[in-house]
Amino acid sequence: MKTYKGYLIDLDGTMYNGTEKIEEACEFVRTLKDRGVPYLFVTNNSSRTPKQVADKLVSFDIPATEEQVFTTSMATAQHIAQQKKDASVYVIGEEGIRQAIEENGLTFGGENADFVVVGIDRSITYEKFAVGCLAIRNGARFISTNGDIAIPTERGLLPGNGSLTSVLTVSTGVQPVFIGKPESIIMEQAMRVLGTDVSETLMVGDNYATDIMAGINAGMDTLLVHTGVTKREHMTDDMEKPTHAIDSLTEWIPYI
Amino acid sequence: MKTYKGYLIDLDGTMYNGTEKIEEACEFVRTLKDRGVPYLFVTNNSSRTPKQVADKLVSFDIPATEEQVFTTSMATAQHIAQQKKDASVYVIGEEGIRQAIEENGLTFGGENADFVVVGIDRSITYEKFAVGCLAIRNGARFISTNGDIAIPTERGLLPGNGSLTSVLTVSTGVQPVFIGKPESIIMEQAMRVLGTDVSETLMVGDNYATDIMAGINAGMDTLLVHTGVTKREHMTDDMEKPTHAIDSLTEWIPYI
Repeated sequence: MKTYKGYLIDLDGTMYNGTEKIEEACEFVRTLKDRGVPYLFVTNNSSRTPKQVADKLVSFDIPATEEQVFTTSMATAQHIAQQKKDASVYVIGEEGIRQAIEENGLTFGGENADFVVVGIDRSITYEKFAVGCLAIRNGARFISTNGDIAIPTERGLLPGNGSLTSVLTVSTGVQPVFIGKPESIIMEQAMRVLGTDVSETLMVGDNYATDIMAGINAGMDTLLVHTGVTKREHMTDDMEKPTHAIDSLTEWIPYI
Repeated sequence: MKTYKGYLIDLDGTMYNGTEKIEEACEFVRTLKDRGVPYLFVTNNSSRTPKQVADKLVSFDIPATEEQVFTTSMATAQHIAQQKKDASVYVIGEEGIRQAIEENGLTFGGENADFVVVGIDRSITYEKFAVGCLAIRNGARFISTNGDIAIPTERGLLPGNGSLTSVLTVSTGVQPVFIGKPESIIMEQAMRVLGTDVSETLMVGDNYATDIMAGINAGMDTLLVHTGVTKREHMTDDMEKPTHAIDSLTEWIPYI
């Protein structure tokens, strides 16, 4: 069995389930830490800051620092900065994406911004959609932090960023660049932060459609753990298989 | 040339252009009125009440009463009432659709409503999208007043109801029933109000994609007037032709 030099790890469904702890996850991450194997938590959630994510992980007894959290907001801001260092950005979104934009030396723009970014925004308004559409029609490059169509909550499945993004897509006819999983952009950005090569990095997650596909799209090895969205019975013959599949992260500890 | 016993008439681009009067339109409607030919103004605008629409027409010297205005909100409410007399409806929208729902004996519901209706809503919020999604996932029938993707305004093209509707479509994977033009539902409902048969009713409008296609879809004769969106040069050979096409409504007066 190949030994991996770096781990990209999904959060919800892998590290915890909503508000419920996953015991095996703590042991798994502690082992990585004890053996000095670098790891990074990678999340499509654009609303939270790395500190907020790290605090949540620590509350589940999972060793995590801010520096070990990589959100789709960070990937989005870095992606923009790589294209235009001092770009102006019209942002639809919450604290996470706004902080990442500022931290990457970008500025906030309006109808004449260089870029339009859409991240989940529970304070969305018609005016925000309107300015976003006007900016895109004025030639702004259109980016969406992630295409998730729904967010699991205690109330049930609520609109995900993919659905809010569609208002601008439908109205302008312009397709956005999606950054988050299953796209490879977030993986490539994360490996750059982790400092490991694609051939020696393992993507660990519970959701085939986002986590595993992101790894496959980035040409990485993938480890599907059946503690969340994708159960064994969901895997059909026509689906490209993950490199590895286990029922619990405890099974993987011998291979760290 | 066939003489028509009833006219369905579009508003913006046909009766006026935004805030600008179209002289020929006044003369055309006055002739219909003088000769006792019944007419009904049919609009995809779901936000305004019939009175508000009639007042705007009168301000352009076009003879119009509330009873001669048929909005997509009225068509939507009648469509629902025909399916379930005392249905509960979760409404995303403004005054026009809310008034029409009440006037058709329907009640306002929430996550457990029988129907979800989306009309343009410049006070849209994430919570409204959320309740709409939850109701659809609970089995509510999903209806959109109209699929227009953009609204022409002084600021430029802003998000139309078709784009707001897409949030619920994308998040739930459920397709709505669209009521407004180019769908035939609004035409059929309007002819029922007008009291004329499809073979003797003429749909008059400036927009091929909505007005003329609605007439074609309803099996009606259509009159395209090039005073608004669709110019002569926009008409290509592969497009199904309107029954008649003129440059100004004055040309049609001899045939009333």
